[in-house]
Amino acid sequence: MKGFAMLKLGEVGWIEKEKPTAGPMDAIVRPLALSPCTSDVHTVWESAASEKRNIIMGHEAVGEVVEVGSLVKDFKPGDKVIVPAITPDWGAVASQMGYSQHSNGMLGGMKFSTSKDGVFGEFFHVNEADGNMAILPDNVSIEEAVMLTDMVPTGFHGADNAEVSYGETIAVIGIGPVGLMAVAGSNLRGAARIFAVGSRPVCVEAAKKYGATDIVNYKDGDISDQIKEAMKGRGVDKVIIAGGGVETFEQAVKIIRPAGIISNVNYFSSGDCIKIPRVAWGLGMSHIRIIGGLMPGGRKNMEYLSNLLKYKKLDVTPLLTHRYKGFEHIEEALLLMKNKTRDLIKPVVTI
Amino acid sequence: MKGFAMLKLGEVGWIEKEKPTAGPMDAIVRPLALSPCTSDVHTVWESAASEKRNIIMGHEAVGEVVEVGSLVKDFKPGDKVIVPAITPDWGAVASQMGYSQHSNGMLGGMKFSTSKDGVFGEFFHVNEADGNMAILPDNVSIEEAVMLTDMVPTGFHGADNAEVSYGETIAVIGIGPVGLMAVAGSNLRGAARIFAVGSRPVCVEAAKKYGATDIVNYKDGDISDQIKEAMKGRGVDKVIIAGGGVETFEQAVKIIRPAGIISNVNYFSSGDCIKIPRVAWGLGMSHIRIIGGLMPGGRKNMEYLSNLLKYKKLDVTPLLTHRYKGFEHIEEALLLMKNKTRDLIKPVVTI
Amino acid sequence: MKGFAMLKLGEVGWIEKEKPTAGPMDAIVRPLALSPCTSDVHTVWESAASEKRNIIMGHEAVGEVVEVGSLVKDFKPGDKVIVPAITPDWGAVASQMGYSQHSNGMLGGMKFSTSKDGVFGEFFHVNEADGNMAILPDNVSIEEAVMLTDMVPTGFHGADNAEVSYGETIAVIGIGPVGLMAVAGSNLRGAARIFAVGSRPVCVEAAKKYGATDIVNYKDGDISDQIKEAMKGRGVDKVIIAGGGVETFEQAVKIIRPAGIISNVNYFSSGDCIKIPRVAWGLGMSHIRIIGGLMPGGRKNMEYLSNLLKYKKLDVTPLLTHRYKGFEHIEEALLLMKNKTRDLIKPVVTI
Amino acid sequence: MKGFAMLKLGEVGWIEKEKPTAGPMDAIVRPLALSPCTSDVHTVWESAASEKRNIIMGHEAVGEVVEVGSLVKDFKPGDKVIVPAITPDWGAVASQMGYSQHSNGMLGGMKFSTSKDGVFGEFFHVNEADGNMAILPDNVSIEEAVMLTDMVPTGFHGADNAEVSYGETIAVIGIGPVGLMAVAGSNLRGAARIFAVGSRPVCVEAAKKYGATDIVNYKDGDISDQIKEAMKGRGVDKVIIAGGGVETFEQAVKIIRPAGIISNVNYFSSGDCIKIPRVAWGLGMSHIRIIGGLMPGGRKNMEYLSNLLKYKKLDVTPLLTHRYKGFEHIEEALLLMKNKTRDLIKPVVTI
Repeated sequence: MKGFAMLKLGEVGWIEKEKPTAGPMDAIVRPLALSPCTSDVHTVWESAASEKRNIIMGHEAVGEVVEVGSLVKDFKPGDKVIVPAITPDWGAVASQMGYSQHSNGMLGGMKFSTSKDGVFGEFFHVNEADGNMAILPDNVSIEEAVMLTDMVPTGFHGADNAEVSYGETIAVIGIGPVGLMAVAGSNLRGAARIFAVGSRPVCVEAAKKYGATDIVNYKDGDISDQIKEAMKGRGVDKVIIAGGGVETFEQAVKIIRPAGIISNVNYFSSGDCIKIPRVAWGLGMSHIRIIGGLMPGGRKNMEYLSNLLKYKKLDVTPLLTHRYKGFEHIEEALLLMKNKTRDLIKPVVTI
Repeated sequence: MKGFAMLKLGEVGWIEKEKPTAGPMDAIVRPLALSPCTSDVHTVWESAASEKRNIIMGHEAVGEVVEVGSLVKDFKPGDKVIVPAITPDWGAVASQMGYSQHSNGMLGGMKFSTSKDGVFGEFFHVNEADGNMAILPDNVSIEEAVMLTDMVPTGFHGADNAEVSYGETIAVIGIGPVGLMAVAGSNLRGAARIFAVGSRPVCVEAAKKYGATDIVNYKDGDISDQIKEAMKGRGVDKVIIAGGGVETFEQAVKIIRPAGIISNVNYFSSGDCIKIPRVAWGLGMSHIRIIGGLMPGGRKNMEYLSNLLKYKKLDVTPLLTHRYKGFEHIEEALLLMKNKTRDLIKPVVTI
Repeated sequence: MKGFAMLKLGEVGWIEKEKPTAGPMDAIVRPLALSPCTSDVHTVWESAASEKRNIIMGHEAVGEVVEVGSLVKDFKPGDKVIVPAITPDWGAVASQMGYSQHSNGMLGGMKFSTSKDGVFGEFFHVNEADGNMAILPDNVSIEEAVMLTDMVPTGFHGADNAEVSYGETIAVIGIGPVGLMAVAGSNLRGAARIFAVGSRPVCVEAAKKYGATDIVNYKDGDISDQIKEAMKGRGVDKVIIAGGGVETFEQAVKIIRPAGIISNVNYFSSGDCIKIPRVAWGLGMSHIRIIGGLMPGGRKNMEYLSNLLKYKKLDVTPLLTHRYKGFEHIEEALLLMKNKTRDLIKPVVTI
Repeated sequence: MKGFAMLKLGEVGWIEKEKPTAGPMDAIVRPLALSPCTSDVHTVWESAASEKRNIIMGHEAVGEVVEVGSLVKDFKPGDKVIVPAITPDWGAVASQMGYSQHSNGMLGGMKFSTSKDGVFGEFFHVNEADGNMAILPDNVSIEEAVMLTDMVPTGFHGADNAEVSYGETIAVIGIGPVGLMAVAGSNLRGAARIFAVGSRPVCVEAAKKYGATDIVNYKDGDISDQIKEAMKGRGVDKVIIAGGGVETFEQAVKIIRPAGIISNVNYFSSGDCIKIPRVAWGLGMSHIRIIGGLMPGGRKNMEYLSNLLKYKKLDVTPLLTHRYKGFEHIEEALLLMKNKTRDLIKPVVTI
């Protein structure tokens, strides 16, 4: 079968591979809608993780089941399914402890284009199908549903880890598609005031739709100064980091109140260390908590998040700025993510 | 001064009382907007708690500060303030443990018209003013703000105790003003599907505005049967009880999933016992949790909830079906709550 | 193979069955140490759940692996393993949500002698072996380890659900082996004062060893009156119910403080309803939480709890009052649990 | 009155001051037992915070009430009381939100020798007496009780923030008196294996008494290498930092499992930044949480922690290596803390 692959560091292209096969608990899925992700770009062109060769890329897909293993009970060929970017090993001790993302090792739930081929092939493999796929609801389109595989759960995980609650003031740093979903997720957890830090007009527009009340543009000066001024000396309750580099934590500590939470969902591809300024962090005693985490995957999350679309509580269409028809456009869509045109939020390719 | 009082069980009327005085930490407030509550009705006509005589009624008020004690730092005469129905003793051990509602004894945070005169007087007293009042935001009207003193925090407390999260299915039983705020609060915590159980058209209409996706009317049959059918055998994630009597818990247990939460914010004025059916409750092993609690009061909650109005994340105007101008209308407004006309959700009296 | 079975309601005996076989994820285990449980007694003689016929009994076993399925990675024949009473389906949505006990339906994690034969056979079957077994640590005996399969996790689950914390006062109602482990578990979560409610001297003695500071005997009067008097009007922080019937909740509500937790780990085999007294429950607004739950099973719990034995933080030998050698003694041990002799806490049979 | 003071940076001595007076909510207390703290040493000789002049030192005291304000209800002259190092403003919004340590600004609950004179005077002042003192239990000595004012709550706070639970493996870095109480607190929350990192024999001996199972001495090589080797590749569940400098976080990240918690209770008096190594922190996605916090003060904590002594669940006498009789010995005791002799854990001065 054909797949769009990382050939080596800095080089992508089409390759031929064997069609994957399903073990007793697995499924083979044919993609119906795909989307490239900024982390695909990181992987190929920044080598954040260890170099891969000839590995099919991609981890955001909605598809049709074509084969299931003998132990799969809840899915059958022909089912249209949402497949999350993270597909944990559910029996692992880490999963039993509530951090399935790290089943079988740190970040072990991230399998696509990491420990096996990704979803940008004619077919792809899903481990533990009963635990890692969800049926596409009738009234949700495949283009919308593909946003549930990574953008929605990653952004919402930022808001969940920040424990956003009624009436809080939140700063979301970075308003690409994940940051926008962190804005939407904060709003859906009851935030009142939301600072959205970004500059591209298409993103700013979307941020307002998703509930941002204040837009902060780094071109207008230091973002922590701008937020501190707007807050008149009070700290924001929570900061969600969805963009920028390791230095962003220093700004976050400066604008947050004691006992606030700094919640990171960004993937840092460079820098030695995250630095937490000692004095602003209360000499170690401020109770400002710092957490960063990979989105949770699995069936439950896909079912619950897709309910938000099914019952019209979340509209992901503002993210979908670029739509392609045909598997071959996956390359173009990926390059779009790499080059980030002015009007881009997220491209989707239907097949 | 003049006040509208419970004279004895079953009898209300105007009385004369001494104007209250402020201790070092207290404030005296002149009401600007008032609203009667169903629990005022319970107190007078159902004697749910122990009988009171000649006590000024009311616990929902927005007002203007006229006097503050010598230790009050953050408020001064002339300030327009929101005063929550619950005004805890903040130094009490119970408050330090996180349940300020029960400072100095069970339900001890409920002082108005319980351990002292309520707010339906020309002036009223606020204990620990710095901890129990919040400045009215500029862009929030006094009529709207009075909904923050009880209806919003009580309904939202139901959703908070239910730990509503993204994509969940919630049943809210009872859609008077508190139940409507439980619907809104569930929606603002990310619920997807919300069953609203009620029958009056004005409430049904409001419930839909606040995010209810399914309306269940007890006139169409047993509500647990209706919800079970709509759920096709799955249980709802959480149930919020905001109406009905002690028997409502039995219905709640029948429709909820294992490990769901039944969250009560209703005040039960009669019945010996709440009954939890043994078999439906998994022989004691279902992890279905049961909690019921008085709304949290205090300044922080008023500040954070008023931010939701200030930043346009919550609109309480659909609750305000009846508006009166003039202190003397408090009697009429109270009787309206007693008689519950077809078009009533909540009356407000401005002065 | 031979097994000791419930033949029908009220009748037990030895039967012959086919040796079980392992699916790809499963294991077959030969028991090395077994213990009968009060819930075995309930099942046969009280028919708490639906009647079973010719089903091998038992759910507390330590054994040796004799066969593993093709997908089992972490265990091999010859391994000595602890098998918890509860063996969830880890990929189920319920497990992904944190309530694996109810995977595939309420109490669905309870499989032994419920949906399949139990452990009192020459061999028994373990589903999802990698997720549901733990290696027996070197320095832990098989007799001690069998206490980890049900008594320790059930009692400790009571303390966990009660969220026992430093310096709290706890009442544990019922001090059979589960109640004793609730005492030990409360002590190991930092409880200061522990009321142990029971009467048999052997249990009272053990309760003191496990950290009980006050013994309450129902023969000396109403237990809630006794505890209230000892507390001089203050409520206890938490109540753990590990014995008694549905009426125990009424006593629990009477002795607990506002916002306390009543945590049940008892299996109620009779009674229509649990009753919560309305007034003592603060008219529905006391924040007294009620939860009851089946112990969590799985590998992680067995590994972590066995660490307490391995590192000498918990001594279960006071529970082991009766020791038998030989598989055939399982019948005698079970009858001992039925008849509860004066000196019994828990019997164990090694093979 | 006489007091032992910080005269200026690097200089201490006796001074004369006015006896403090009580506002309506306050109390004046005469010390009965005092203890100097390492943070007193930091303040004078390292100038960690801003320089103070002529301020009476000390924040660990048990005493006798000599005067109370007109609004104080629960205490009277003659009462023997435990006064925590942290005495929050309980009505503050921060306290209502659960972080009373930061009432009225970051670290605002720390008042002694910071915003007012400390406890090393003939008399000292306690704000909000009803909320910030606890009666000394009958069977607890004043020397033991003074350990409840800072050492116990600080160490236990480390274990609380680390959310230590049954069977976990914990590393406690630094085993001075606070670190020892972090060991004891971990043990009392159910930890199984506890690595205690330290070198002084007196501390090592005490650590073992408090539940440490493994001693790690930095003189034997890099501590993270030693712990990793002992763990055979698994990460510890939690790390509590109770000593060392800002660089300790890097070691902590290296030895902890994904989703573990690094809980700091150390006061960092130098260094620009805490550094979190990017790769070991999972590129920002490991869910390793970082929190550091000042101990919680107030009456409730003193009451609950003193129950642990009253009911013999915690023995603090191993901490008390040096005992002095007479107020004048406070100077000697402080210098002992500065110079840390080989046999020192903690000195106490009774008066």
